[in-house]
Amino acid sequence: MSSAEAKAARRAKFEGVFEKIRDELVEHFAGEGMPAEAVKWYRDNLNYNVPGGKLNRGLSVVDTVEILKGRALTEDEYFKSAILGWCVELLQAYFLVADDMMDSSITRRGQPCWYRLPEIGSIAINDSFMLEAAIYRLLKVHFRPEPYYADLLDLFHETTYQTEMGQLVDLITAPEDKVDLSKFSLERHRLIVIYKTAYYSFYLPVACAMLVSRIPDTYTVPAASGSATVKPYDLALSILLPLGEYFQIQDDFLDFSGTPEQIGKIGTDIVDNKCSWVVNTAIKLASPAQRQLLDENYGRKDAEKEKKVKALFEELGIRKVYAEYEERVVSDLKKKIGEIVEVEGGLKREVFESFLGKIYRRSK
Amino acid sequence: MSSAEAKAARRAKFEGVFEKIRDELVEHFAGEGMPAEAVKWYRDNLNYNVPGGKLNRGLSVVDTVEILKGRALTEDEYFKSAILGWCVELLQAYFLVADDMMDSSITRRGQPCWYRLPEIGSIAINDSFMLEAAIYRLLKVHFRPEPYYADLLDLFHETTYQTEMGQLVDLITAPEDKVDLSKFSLERHRLIVIYKTAYYSFYLPVACAMLVSRIPDTYTVPAASGSATVKPYDLALSILLPLGEYFQIQDDFLDFSGTPEQIGKIGTDIVDNKCSWVVNTAIKLASPAQRQLLDENYGRKDAEKEKKVKALFEELGIRKVYAEYEERVVSDLKKKIGEIVEVEGGLKREVFESFLGKIYRRSK
Repeated sequence: MSSAEAKAARRAKFEGVFEKIRDELVEHFAGEGMPAEAVKWYRDNLNYNVPGGKLNRGLSVVDTVEILKGRALTEDEYFKSAILGWCVELLQAYFLVADDMMDSSITRRGQPCWYRLPEIGSIAINDSFMLEAAIYRLLKVHFRPEPYYADLLDLFHETTYQTEMGQLVDLITAPEDKVDLSKFSLERHRLIVIYKTAYYSFYLPVACAMLVSRIPDTYTVPAASGSATVKPYDLALSILLPLGEYFQIQDDFLDFSGTPEQIGKIGTDIVDNKCSWVVNTAIKLASPAQRQLLDENYGRKDAEKEKKVKALFEELGIRKVYAEYEERVVSDLKKKIGEIVEVEGGLKREVFESFLGKIYRRSK
Repeated sequence: MSSAEAKAARRAKFEGVFEKIRDELVEHFAGEGMPAEAVKWYRDNLNYNVPGGKLNRGLSVVDTVEILKGRALTEDEYFKSAILGWCVELLQAYFLVADDMMDSSITRRGQPCWYRLPEIGSIAINDSFMLEAAIYRLLKVHFRPEPYYADLLDLFHETTYQTEMGQLVDLITAPEDKVDLSKFSLERHRLIVIYKTAYYSFYLPVACAMLVSRIPDTYTVPAASGSATVKPYDLALSILLPLGEYFQIQDDFLDFSGTPEQIGKIGTDIVDNKCSWVVNTAIKLASPAQRQLLDENYGRKDAEKEKKVKALFEELGIRKVYAEYEERVVSDLKKKIGEIVEVEGGLKREVFESFLGKIYRRSK
């Protein structure tokens, strides 16, 4: 089996678990006495909004559990890890259905946004709520007796709240219809990215995997001074937040630099007034005249203005700034990862190396 | 102090706790490094959407704890009960902010709906999410060490899911813009009311009070046969769901029969195509000709058509049907309540009598 085939098989196995939990959710819903029309609606909601993405977040729960255990998983271990993976995907679906409404987006994953379907409309708000509620239904059914059940609930609650904080700051910093670059800065960008993306996309899957693998709150490792106490969840956070920031900065950079063949879509951050790493870096580097050009041309639905902004980004050498940033952050991350002291039943460097390997110099 | 003064003082004390938890939430949010503009936004969201209602649900948590303990509460007991009360109010705020968007409502509690404020718009979706997230933040801060913490989280999750199920069925049964009375029935009305209203408005506050009062899952009571096992949460549910249904049927009836002076608003259920107890009862009693009149006139934004529907309701004797329903349900509830066997540390009849006393024959 080639590596591409192995990847497809891994994905297919994970998608098989989705069918199971979708049926479980829908059967419980029907069992509450809900009418057939509502049962179909809920099933359609789950099918339309939950699978169909890249599934990186969900799959990374399973991958991380395998790395932490250092062996193939039993059927039951795989199933529980995959359920947590789908809970992360459900959380993302909850956010995306709502974000698309708040951003007035047209398409998502190559199909119309859920709320744009004629029969759905604003009912999509309640549908997004139900995607979130499905997480807690699944956790209750499959994890209630576990000693880490409350930790799992706290983790999902905190991550949800953090993501919503980031979304609020993003929405009021960069409304699509009102350009005000004085609100932008690399610091603001960093805050938005950490809260809106890094917690739920990077920390949440790894922390889920750590809980289901029973990594304890603290443990001791050998150190020059005899021994040292490790707080593995804090340690994971201290690597995964900058890693998530790097991922998003790369995403922002690819929106500007990637060709449609590369990234599979046409970058629209400039016309959409996005608070992107690229524009924030340009703001930092711009002379007063260049800043004026940005103020006058950024965030407008106008191809000529977009061209001017792109030319300015090239003039400011954004490509080179990005390349330097990438080498620096990757070297910092490698150093941090290298400092992890591995002990039986604790964190492993490979968890983070695996993430970094998938991200470094990606072009799509 | 008169009874009205005592009631106002109780409300003022409860509102005092809101100030505390709002400040606690906002300070934590600011402490996460959120920009001043976002901090103000969140504070405004909480202030605009959480207090200002009748607070019946929130106050009933405190009242029920007092009844269960059979004595005045200590400062700490009061504070914890009031926090749970505000969590119920936060849950309601979460639903109402979103419901108003889905229903295209104009006003709520005598002020414009949150999403109708010009600077808010669809960001209200994320704001509603944050009201929900605030619940779990408060529960974590104030209840994490309690042995019933996971039960409390399960209770809020389940109630949230049930309410969303009810909201979905309501939305697809009675869309404002498409009248189809063939979807209506008293059974459908019952399902919507139980799920959309009764769980969160009646069961949730009492179950919160029972958990914080440490009412156990099961206990035994003396019985003719020696002793019997009571499941107090199931018992509470078996009274509070029909009680919630009665409350909503009364609400539906008052929308039709109450004068604006009585109910403080003008009833709009007929023109809004609401799946109300009144129209469902009329459907059950109507001759084919009367049914045709309903099909042609219900749910239209037309004062003449509304008048015709109202006349038909009178012709069908809805007032008498309601009066008979009310006497029957109240007598059934009293019987059920009377059958409760009281033991130290268990449920008390007064919990339910108190609810019933507030509802029976109310005119607003």
